[in-house]
Amino acid sequence: MKNRYACGGMDKQTMTVEELAQRIGAQVRGDGKLVIGRCAAIDDADGESVTFVANQKYARLLRKTEAGAAIVGPGNVERAREGLTLLVAEDPYFAFRQAVVILHGFRTQPQPGISKLAYIDPSAKIGKDCAIQPFVFVGPDAVIGDGCVLYAGCYVGEGSTVGEQTVLYAGVVVYEGCRIGKRVILHAGTVIGTDGYGFATHKGAHHKIPQFGNVVLEDDVELGANCAVQRGAVGPTVIGAGTKMSDLVDIGHGATVGKHNLLVSQVGIAGSATTGDYVVIGGQSGVAGHLQVGRLAQVAARSGVVTDVPEGEQYGGSPAIRLEDAKKVGMEVVRLPEIVKEMRELQERVKELEKRLGEG
Amino acid sequence: MKNRYACGGMDKQTMTVEELAQRIGAQVRGDGKLVIGRCAAIDDADGESVTFVANQKYARLLRKTEAGAAIVGPGNVERAREGLTLLVAEDPYFAFRQAVVILHGFRTQPQPGISKLAYIDPSAKIGKDCAIQPFVFVGPDAVIGDGCVLYAGCYVGEGSTVGEQTVLYAGVVVYEGCRIGKRVILHAGTVIGTDGYGFATHKGAHHKIPQFGNVVLEDDVELGANCAVQRGAVGPTVIGAGTKMSDLVDIGHGATVGKHNLLVSQVGIAGSATTGDYVVIGGQSGVAGHLQVGRLAQVAARSGVVTDVPEGEQYGGSPAIRLEDAKKVGMEVVRLPEIVKEMRELQERVKELEKRLGEG
Amino acid sequence: MKNRYACGGMDKQTMTVEELAQRIGAQVRGDGKLVIGRCAAIDDADGESVTFVANQKYARLLRKTEAGAAIVGPGNVERAREGLTLLVAEDPYFAFRQAVVILHGFRTQPQPGISKLAYIDPSAKIGKDCAIQPFVFVGPDAVIGDGCVLYAGCYVGEGSTVGEQTVLYAGVVVYEGCRIGKRVILHAGTVIGTDGYGFATHKGAHHKIPQFGNVVLEDDVELGANCAVQRGAVGPTVIGAGTKMSDLVDIGHGATVGKHNLLVSQVGIAGSATTGDYVVIGGQSGVAGHLQVGRLAQVAARSGVVTDVPEGEQYGGSPAIRLEDAKKVGMEVVRLPEIVKEMRELQERVKELEKRLGEG
Repeated sequence: MKNRYACGGMDKQTMTVEELAQRIGAQVRGDGKLVIGRCAAIDDADGESVTFVANQKYARLLRKTEAGAAIVGPGNVERAREGLTLLVAEDPYFAFRQAVVILHGFRTQPQPGISKLAYIDPSAKIGKDCAIQPFVFVGPDAVIGDGCVLYAGCYVGEGSTVGEQTVLYAGVVVYEGCRIGKRVILHAGTVIGTDGYGFATHKGAHHKIPQFGNVVLEDDVELGANCAVQRGAVGPTVIGAGTKMSDLVDIGHGATVGKHNLLVSQVGIAGSATTGDYVVIGGQSGVAGHLQVGRLAQVAARSGVVTDVPEGEQYGGSPAIRLEDAKKVGMEVVRLPEIVKEMRELQERVKELEKRLGEG
Repeated sequence: MKNRYACGGMDKQTMTVEELAQRIGAQVRGDGKLVIGRCAAIDDADGESVTFVANQKYARLLRKTEAGAAIVGPGNVERAREGLTLLVAEDPYFAFRQAVVILHGFRTQPQPGISKLAYIDPSAKIGKDCAIQPFVFVGPDAVIGDGCVLYAGCYVGEGSTVGEQTVLYAGVVVYEGCRIGKRVILHAGTVIGTDGYGFATHKGAHHKIPQFGNVVLEDDVELGANCAVQRGAVGPTVIGAGTKMSDLVDIGHGATVGKHNLLVSQVGIAGSATTGDYVVIGGQSGVAGHLQVGRLAQVAARSGVVTDVPEGEQYGGSPAIRLEDAKKVGMEVVRLPEIVKEMRELQERVKELEKRLGEG
Repeated sequence: MKNRYACGGMDKQTMTVEELAQRIGAQVRGDGKLVIGRCAAIDDADGESVTFVANQKYARLLRKTEAGAAIVGPGNVERAREGLTLLVAEDPYFAFRQAVVILHGFRTQPQPGISKLAYIDPSAKIGKDCAIQPFVFVGPDAVIGDGCVLYAGCYVGEGSTVGEQTVLYAGVVVYEGCRIGKRVILHAGTVIGTDGYGFATHKGAHHKIPQFGNVVLEDDVELGANCAVQRGAVGPTVIGAGTKMSDLVDIGHGATVGKHNLLVSQVGIAGSATTGDYVVIGGQSGVAGHLQVGRLAQVAARSGVVTDVPEGEQYGGSPAIRLEDAKKVGMEVVRLPEIVKEMRELQERVKELEKRLGEG
């Protein structure tokens, strides 16, 4: 099915497969003179499109795609239909990503300049070449690095610092005293540094505990829309360099998320939990407070992590256990009515045996 | 229990049951001259209220409600207490909705006019009779249709279009290049067109893939507060006409939600998933990526959909299976400790039998 | 591990253990002249820090903490290492909270004053000593009590009232006609009074039902970031006094949350549900519509409540049952593959017995 709608108005370039292959470090098989104008999904491509196969599951679609060209790994060269020009790359998904960057590019950011409709506290420092749109609020002693983009309605609180080339989309809120790294991307509506959820219950009332920590987002972090990262109670909540989260993720106070993590939409990490580097947590999963998820561990979607997860392990289920075990359990759970029926039959057979032996 | 608090200050009208019945297409049984001033829930109604029963579960309350009048289906006429005036309608819930529209009406929207405190790019086009509040940002080449309402702090990015009579509540963000239909309602804090969650992991880093698709919301879509809809990577993310979502719903990049869907709060639909028309998905459920939920399918609350759902089926559980089966499984799971105990007893009995036979 | 990052720039005081003990009502054991400058977690404390143990699980850390002083209950006095100065209190967590208030204090709020960059409708009433930042919108007939703080970009709709000393952080949205109590705290991006999710489906379309109720937040309520509370369809949605919610919580229309509840991040309470006073609901849990969760009941994290919960009970699981039972079930579920294997063996043994008896 072709897209019924035209896409965003981003510029695109055209070039020959030959040129594209050279720029993304791929080998051409087929017509290198073919001109390519866009990147497309394999079931939505036309003759001017370059598509890709990175997941073996979709390799069969190479037989029938209408794409002009496809980026594939060496193992899939023989699976393509005749006439389909191939760009063969060791890491076809990354090569496709490079093609998207070349042919479509990233969003064009607003021109540098500070809107007269923004409020910048006189004591704040704004770096060179920043674009600051209307209705942005930058508080006292805040520091915005060179080349940052603050979309309309962003709020940067007192004394917070934002590293160079960071982009805050519309309506992002950074409370006071937080440190945002370089090249960080925060999508619209995301809130950094809200108070940790900390109360001491005494004589029938929940007494708020001042949360005097802050939030640190290291370099190259990206958070989706409408996330929340709580400031620590007594120290920082830290999101490690290169970590990417999707939308509506919540990070509790004092949590430490490692470097290069992937946290999918609607994940919740409770207070004081830690994840090692290269952790992946699937959508709608939760990690309970004070736990440790080890380096390179992976947690399946919709899991409830209630114990530490050892380094490199795959966990799943709620409560989460080793994924392999969780799958076995899952298979049996679904068969449970049948299993109970079998047991009922067995009970009858044993009763019958007992009767016969009793008769004997 | 009567409400302890007065409600919002919306205007209300009074009229006789007779007049109301005529306007909503119902038949009167009882005192048509009774004057009605408000709509109310059946356990919170007084003599000036009209209430309703649409769900058979609440029909017994017709015996003791203090309401002056009640809208009911033909089958519940005999279940009402003596003296309760009835408005009999084929579709009592829809008839009650009509009564609410007549007696209370929708929110009065702000008067047309463009606030001097809004920022409208010179190249943007604003239709007739729009109300644009302070601190709204409308970017270059954006097009706002006739009769739209943009509450304070909304953001409409470059080249996005908003169809006529659409309402964006406070703080809504529409990224660039998106298409919002007619009569769409987006509640406060909702974000349309945030980047899809797409990264190519290469040599230890997650490289952002430009998301050059957009989001299309067809006519009559309504989204609750603080939702997020990701723009497609290479094509649009589409929400079909008449679909209604509640709060904090997340829609992944390249997903296609059908027409007239109902997605309850905190649902997540992962990237490239599709739902047919008239799909209903209960609160806190998730649908994994690339799956298809068939037309008229229903997914129970808190389900985790990990396989396609056939047209018209009801699914539930996590992982989700046919709802009927999920219920059976659920019943046995809860009885599992008992089942294990029974099996232990059976093991003992078999051991005893084996012993006796061995002795024999 | 010492924190790698300095924290937010909040003022702190120093004082002797003696003075601190007196102010928080604790008894000193050890060097009362020791000077304390900050509060710290037990594994992150240094000689100038006061830490605490409230949870028996962490009492063993009193042997090796580097803290100068620790607040403990009477039962843990003997568990501390030699030289660790103790402040002994009946309620050590509350005493620590008091110490945090004294040594670090709450966030310094902006100075009173109404920014010229805010929009205040001429008919709105602003109390004494309010701080209203730029880009705040206060609608017609809205009433803001004395000493309130409205951070940048907040929106207070027509006729809504905000009680004295309430703080709305950046980008909070209060729709029209709502009532916010005294000393309420709403964190950034939270939305109060969005429309209830109510539609009457008729002839293939979902017809919006006007939601003419409102939202009432009683005194001392605190909500985290990016929450949503729907206005009632016909009456108010009520959040009881002293209730504290974390981030991304959704409350459905017509729900009544009791007083002094604790609702952790990403909880969802569906429409018309009620909770009694002192209810606690763990993160990512959901309560279905129209249910009642009794006073003092506790619901474990990630639970799906689909029946009423009796007063004082602990529930868990999805669907939620008594927590004690849920734990037993959970233990057996994980062992299910093993149980099935045992049953298979039993079947073989019975078959063998039948064979032998048959032969006999």
